[in-house]
Amino acid sequence: MNTIKVSVPSTSANLGSGFDVVAIAHDAYRESLVLTVIDGGRGEITVESGSRKVAFQKNTAGLAASLIMEEYGISADLRISLTKSIPTGLGLGSSGASAAASVYAMNLAFDLGLSDNEMVRYAMLGETASSGTPHADNVSAALLGGITIVRSTDPMDCVSFRPEYGPNLLTVIPYVRLKNKTRSAREMIPTTVETDRAIDNSRRLSSLIHGLITGDRKSLYFGLNDAIYERSRISLYPYLDMFREKMLELGAVGVCASGAGPSILAFLDEQSDIRSMEKAASSIMGSFKLRFRMVSSGICGGARVE
Amino acid sequence: MNTIKVSVPSTSANLGSGFDVVAIAHDAYRESLVLTVIDGGRGEITVESGSRKVAFQKNTAGLAASLIMEEYGISADLRISLTKSIPTGLGLGSSGASAAASVYAMNLAFDLGLSDNEMVRYAMLGETASSGTPHADNVSAALLGGITIVRSTDPMDCVSFRPEYGPNLLTVIPYVRLKNKTRSAREMIPTTVETDRAIDNSRRLSSLIHGLITGDRKSLYFGLNDAIYERSRISLYPYLDMFREKMLELGAVGVCASGAGPSILAFLDEQSDIRSMEKAASSIMGSFKLRFRMVSSGICGGARVE
Repeated sequence: MNTIKVSVPSTSANLGSGFDVVAIAHDAYRESLVLTVIDGGRGEITVESGSRKVAFQKNTAGLAASLIMEEYGISADLRISLTKSIPTGLGLGSSGASAAASVYAMNLAFDLGLSDNEMVRYAMLGETASSGTPHADNVSAALLGGITIVRSTDPMDCVSFRPEYGPNLLTVIPYVRLKNKTRSAREMIPTTVETDRAIDNSRRLSSLIHGLITGDRKSLYFGLNDAIYERSRISLYPYLDMFREKMLELGAVGVCASGAGPSILAFLDEQSDIRSMEKAASSIMGSFKLRFRMVSSGICGGARVE
Repeated sequence: MNTIKVSVPSTSANLGSGFDVVAIAHDAYRESLVLTVIDGGRGEITVESGSRKVAFQKNTAGLAASLIMEEYGISADLRISLTKSIPTGLGLGSSGASAAASVYAMNLAFDLGLSDNEMVRYAMLGETASSGTPHADNVSAALLGGITIVRSTDPMDCVSFRPEYGPNLLTVIPYVRLKNKTRSAREMIPTTVETDRAIDNSRRLSSLIHGLITGDRKSLYFGLNDAIYERSRISLYPYLDMFREKMLELGAVGVCASGAGPSILAFLDEQSDIRSMEKAASSIMGSFKLRFRMVSSGICGGARVE
């Protein structure tokens, strides 16, 4: 019997114009996974989230582990125990975190020598247990840390970097539960876009990447905006425009939806008046009759052994 | 009477996935414009390109100057003399160069105090004399130098940067003349794109910007590629795929069409075998029965007084 404990951070994907491509790892939350390997078993996987047993195929950690087991012909029994602290279904990469932690633990436990990109691939496939559609953004940030760009999905290829300027992040997390949010959110994305809007988004995305790497305030401001993807899901975070306007007034660098929402992510710097932002958030969320939490965080590393 | 002489570099726009957004200034060519201001005139503009007189409204330098004259109520006569050395109609920013040089000279001659973005805007509008549709990519690079990102067109906003790693560039310029190429090239762009392809391009574009800033070889490789815009105009440079394959084999970092073509731009580094590339280019261009020229260049500054 062999036990390994790993942890992964919360993550925010998309960042406005970087839909399905860009994500950031932050220390708003960090949660752990314990993998126990029982040799001589028959390849059975049990998954416990807190004290609740869940079917492994329906859990992102369980599915990711089973894919690896199958591909590497592993016959040991696995016990995966998740201690969830990233709020689920709120756009903070909770489902991706479990998948990422599972793959990271499997790689170490069985000494598989997986590359970063191979880990991202397995975690992405594992996350389909929750999202239906494979997407690598959250899992890449949860695994590799920093800011990640999914450069390619075929072959899977991600690059991660950790910019010198920070950034300082603020997450506004409303307590809204939407059943199957991730699936429905995907259905809200239009199947075609007008070229002019696509080019408009290319401008924003170029700004975003420039801003994320260099810290250029104006590039981040232009980039943390989107006219297609974030916009098409506005009903999932109807308060976003009010937030954006108010937070920018109070000196935020930029504001965007965190993943498919409902959480909001703001990039801050020394010009930002956080105290007034808290008051503004109370007033805006109050008008939507929503309870919420605000968490200040910074960019952080990815998966690690605990 | 007051005379000012300025020069501007050749430029390559798009760079694969950065259609209408990204451009680079290179010292493959540099050409000059002489602006003579004759006080007490009636606001007449004469444009000479070499020894040939051209109608100012049909010339990008003339149109740009006339727009500024009108907006600033300038009543002097202007004589614009262009010494074209950037080959025209070959995707090297020739029409944008004239517009950029004209605006740069006007700003100095009349001490207008235009910001970089205001200069880009006038030059962009001037370039419509040639292209029909305003686009700011070439003119931004010709004015500001380095690599430029058009972050926004409303308000006009560009950012320019000069990366530490180089890059080394190679331009392959076939002598093909297509009448009204820029206009027709624009009509080849589809009016809508499937979202999946747009996201695929977002990945490439994110890689491109990351690669351009950091010099990351793999990011440049992924980014100097496009599945929508460059692809839709492949008939303007039917040899691109052969070139790309061969040049990558010979150690190029990445290969793309320069603007709307027909020229090709390659990013090189110490792994690149330029000599063999010359031979390969001869063989490929020979098979298309095209004469061509290859020019090695580097990134360079923008408009300047001579």
